[in-house]
Amino acid sequence: MLLSKLVGERTKENPSDATIRSHALLVRAGFIKLVANGIWALAMPARRICKKIENIIREEMDAVEGQEVSFPVVMPRELWEESGRYSSIGDEMVRFKDRNQKDLVLGMTHEEAAVYLCRNWVSSYQQLPFMIYQLQTKFRDEARSRGGLIRVREFVMKDAYSFHMSQEGLEEYYQRMYDAYSRIFKRIGMKKVAVVKSDSGMMGGNIAHEYMLLTPSGEDTIVLCSSCDYKANIEIAASVREPNRDDISSELEEVFTADKIQIDEVSELLKVPAHKTIKAVTYENRYSGEIIVAFIRGDLEINEAKLKKLVGKDIVPASLQDSQDVFAGNIGPIGLTDKVKVFFDTSLKEANNMVGGANKPEYHITGIDVSRDLKGVRFDDISKVRENEKCPVCGHELNLENGIEVGNIFQLGDKYTKGMNMTVLNREGKAQHPIMGCYGIGIGRALSSVAEESNDEYGLIWPMSIAPWHVYLCPLRLDDPLVKENAYKLYRELEEQGVEVLFDDRDTSAGVKFSDCDLMGIPLRVVISPRSLKNNQAEVQSRTKDFNKNINLSDVTSEIKKIISNSIL
Amino acid sequence: MLLSKLVGERTKENPSDATIRSHALLVRAGFIKLVANGIWALAMPARRICKKIENIIREEMDAVEGQEVSFPVVMPRELWEESGRYSSIGDEMVRFKDRNQKDLVLGMTHEEAAVYLCRNWVSSYQQLPFMIYQLQTKFRDEARSRGGLIRVREFVMKDAYSFHMSQEGLEEYYQRMYDAYSRIFKRIGMKKVAVVKSDSGMMGGNIAHEYMLLTPSGEDTIVLCSSCDYKANIEIAASVREPNRDDISSELEEVFTADKIQIDEVSELLKVPAHKTIKAVTYENRYSGEIIVAFIRGDLEINEAKLKKLVGKDIVPASLQDSQDVFAGNIGPIGLTDKVKVFFDTSLKEANNMVGGANKPEYHITGIDVSRDLKGVRFDDISKVRENEKCPVCGHELNLENGIEVGNIFQLGDKYTKGMNMTVLNREGKAQHPIMGCYGIGIGRALSSVAEESNDEYGLIWPMSIAPWHVYLCPLRLDDPLVKENAYKLYRELEEQGVEVLFDDRDTSAGVKFSDCDLMGIPLRVVISPRSLKNNQAEVQSRTKDFNKNINLSDVTSEIKKIISNSIL
Repeated sequence: MLLSKLVGERTKENPSDATIRSHALLVRAGFIKLVANGIWALAMPARRICKKIENIIREEMDAVEGQEVSFPVVMPRELWEESGRYSSIGDEMVRFKDRNQKDLVLGMTHEEAAVYLCRNWVSSYQQLPFMIYQLQTKFRDEARSRGGLIRVREFVMKDAYSFHMSQEGLEEYYQRMYDAYSRIFKRIGMKKVAVVKSDSGMMGGNIAHEYMLLTPSGEDTIVLCSSCDYKANIEIAASVREPNRDDISSELEEVFTADKIQIDEVSELLKVPAHKTIKAVTYENRYSGEIIVAFIRGDLEINEAKLKKLVGKDIVPASLQDSQDVFAGNIGPIGLTDKVKVFFDTSLKEANNMVGGANKPEYHITGIDVSRDLKGVRFDDISKVRENEKCPVCGHELNLENGIEVGNIFQLGDKYTKGMNMTVLNREGKAQHPIMGCYGIGIGRALSSVAEESNDEYGLIWPMSIAPWHVYLCPLRLDDPLVKENAYKLYRELEEQGVEVLFDDRDTSAGVKFSDCDLMGIPLRVVISPRSLKNNQAEVQSRTKDFNKNINLSDVTSEIKKIISNSIL
Repeated sequence: MLLSKLVGERTKENPSDATIRSHALLVRAGFIKLVANGIWALAMPARRICKKIENIIREEMDAVEGQEVSFPVVMPRELWEESGRYSSIGDEMVRFKDRNQKDLVLGMTHEEAAVYLCRNWVSSYQQLPFMIYQLQTKFRDEARSRGGLIRVREFVMKDAYSFHMSQEGLEEYYQRMYDAYSRIFKRIGMKKVAVVKSDSGMMGGNIAHEYMLLTPSGEDTIVLCSSCDYKANIEIAASVREPNRDDISSELEEVFTADKIQIDEVSELLKVPAHKTIKAVTYENRYSGEIIVAFIRGDLEINEAKLKKLVGKDIVPASLQDSQDVFAGNIGPIGLTDKVKVFFDTSLKEANNMVGGANKPEYHITGIDVSRDLKGVRFDDISKVRENEKCPVCGHELNLENGIEVGNIFQLGDKYTKGMNMTVLNREGKAQHPIMGCYGIGIGRALSSVAEESNDEYGLIWPMSIAPWHVYLCPLRLDDPLVKENAYKLYRELEEQGVEVLFDDRDTSAGVKFSDCDLMGIPLRVVISPRSLKNNQAEVQSRTKDFNKNINLSDVTSEIKKIISNSIL
């Protein structure tokens, strides 16, 4: 490829809306261009990277007997009603009417389509297990897109769906996928990927894992044990805490606290530490409107993902108005109306001498002994794990790290096959709902994640396996006939040998050429100049600078081929 | 691939909604499944065919220096307002609002996105010419989808856009694309493809060509000269007709024709042949509502594409109500109100002794001499060419054939670069709007078109270049250990050598296996049976039946590799 013809402008200026480095660099290198909020166009280099990522994924999916298929982007409402998700998914799903007033949606995931394709087409246990996958555009109307291709509204995803006769069969295949995913991220060139247990969210099902690229700019928080192998998304990481109980329990007492309602205000006024207070956090069931009150130790935070799972429905934080039943700033566990649904975090179990709202304006109650005063209450783990807390497995200290979710795998159970009534005949000739797994990787996010992990002050640094081109061929003084002749000769020779070359055929300075090369992150730079030609050589340098060598022109192609094949897994 | 695991049911029953053969066969073979009107899911075999078609297209696009990019499926209204197409395109374009009430559209083509990507990113004439292309999903809300993947609402298209500094530059590149397209359809395995001049329709611009696969089930009509090289879509095929003039012109006379208003009724009543009558056909400007009357010889038909081009706007047939100005059944060229816009077909030029409406109820006028009575009238070619009329180039007879449009190429001019204000600096340093070309091929339609051209009473017949698998390996009596051993051994051997094999590992009869093989259209069938193994051989037969040979087991793989490489262009 001739650089002079490449569509895409390289620039030194960081885009003003870029909050993370990969976003800025991808835009500055002319790889991606914003079309609308969360919607991007990809120029040739980004498209080439995506194609290489897609091909690595295809190879690994085919290696676990995947059948590549294609589901549509646009689907009829009916399909999503069968699974119940037409109503359970909110604004993220785009809905519209066609010219005949039929309701259609844009696919955000394809479980429904996968079941639809196989239903009636697969009839016997002998056809199972099987896995189908596709690479297809999805649209999710994210409220908040960010980070270049990290969180967008339109994206291409590899999504796979496996079908099994039993949970054991699923688990066996799930492990193969688990390993295939590990290979994929390794081959793509990601270094710090942690596999963590996760919440299955809107997918339903129980066991799920996320592949997290650990990086400070990641939006997700991952809990990792400093000693054992425990890793989990904070959304599901289990909390383990010391009992919060003094030797002697005080009596209950109502105290006047005026307009003090925040934990820190009450704590200061009454001279009690935050962990001896009971915090009430209020939510609303997104569909029924029911009010939910979650009680938790004052110094801890509610983990909304855990709470949501308990409620079984989508919840949103609610700021209540004072009413006959509830006084927003003074909600407490004693004497609260039964018109609201109540949850207690395990951090309150057996706690005593606690301060909580009195359920009347301007008053709190001190001396609450949860064991004594709140009989029959159920406790659930609905708190967020904090740095340095104890590992639920080995008891050692936990660390928190940020990560980007680059892939996920789910055990779905029969949620979709049952909901959509897909059956196959088992060995005994009886109709049975197959058990499903599903497995996703976003292509653009993978690209951006590698860029986020692999860059320096000069620009992007692509791993050889997904680099847009292997070599940046950089002649200096192209007006020199000898340089021109040798550069074009090498260009042809490399391409004939299957080496992918971006040829900087511009009549511009060495400085501009070198900085463009660094910004674009091409793994190998080959310089041909009047000076190098004096020794009949070219200078070959790796983008990471750990390789720099003058090589005889006649050996350049073979040496480069060696470097390339050694650096692709 | 093991056939036992392949998702997709093969059946003998034709789907009731299938009107053409390829549609029925693709469904019967389990290749495609309807999800909603004009929206399909593709099973593995169809997806494999698409991938091969896509790769052939990619190779040819890269060979003419194409840069593969990616534009989004969902685009903001603003982009389409810049080009003026947000309002000029009708219901075919899906429009919807996102969660923030922003107007978005689903891309039906990507000229706007192409200009958007290059605008500001390409600044100098030195970067031109260049071509960018993508393979991307489009959605067009077709009123009438049909024919399996022939005419659908959602489809993947290869669309390419070239940018040039001059019309000459565009024409030179256009010719390269013209040739690349011819190679593509040849490599895909289409036999009867005609390149015809066409109307540029909603794309704008002037010169355009369509690649038409000639087949009786095609929806398009193509005009071909029986002698010279003239070929054109009937929408633009020029009409050449004998003068329609008698030696002596009669006088004008109003005659009472009562309720006779159709050409055949008037013709019968007044005893004049249809070609001596003037037919008035009425339309409405889709946007302004203006009434349009097109006059044409009574025995001919209006070519709406030609008329639309003259009007410059979209038109729809209008059935008028009688009013003060216009009497629907009696419209004629003499005395017609000037409140309607009038067009005359060239078939009326110099015609005399014609019968036309009298512009009053129940009356016609006879003896109309167009030269004498309609001074200053302009004549345009707005008629449909008929079978056996004269070639506008050589005068020989024209033939009409049906065809499926499998590709199209357009010279766009500066419609989009001007409308969207994309400029580059020319050699003299002045800002200039580049000239564009655009070039499309629908992937699914290509697949269905090949299927339509290439099948027999038993099923599909895939050309080797795009076949889902090269070989259908068909062991008979897999319960025989010797058959089993040799079949699996050959399966592994073929796959190791890069031969794509669909292995029929089912415990079923030879009849079922052979008919599935024929239905799916795999080019080569390899049978291993107790009988063939007596001679240590396998029977290799081509789907077309023109090759059938018993081959020693040790030679099967190499022979098959030879057949494959000989049959792929």
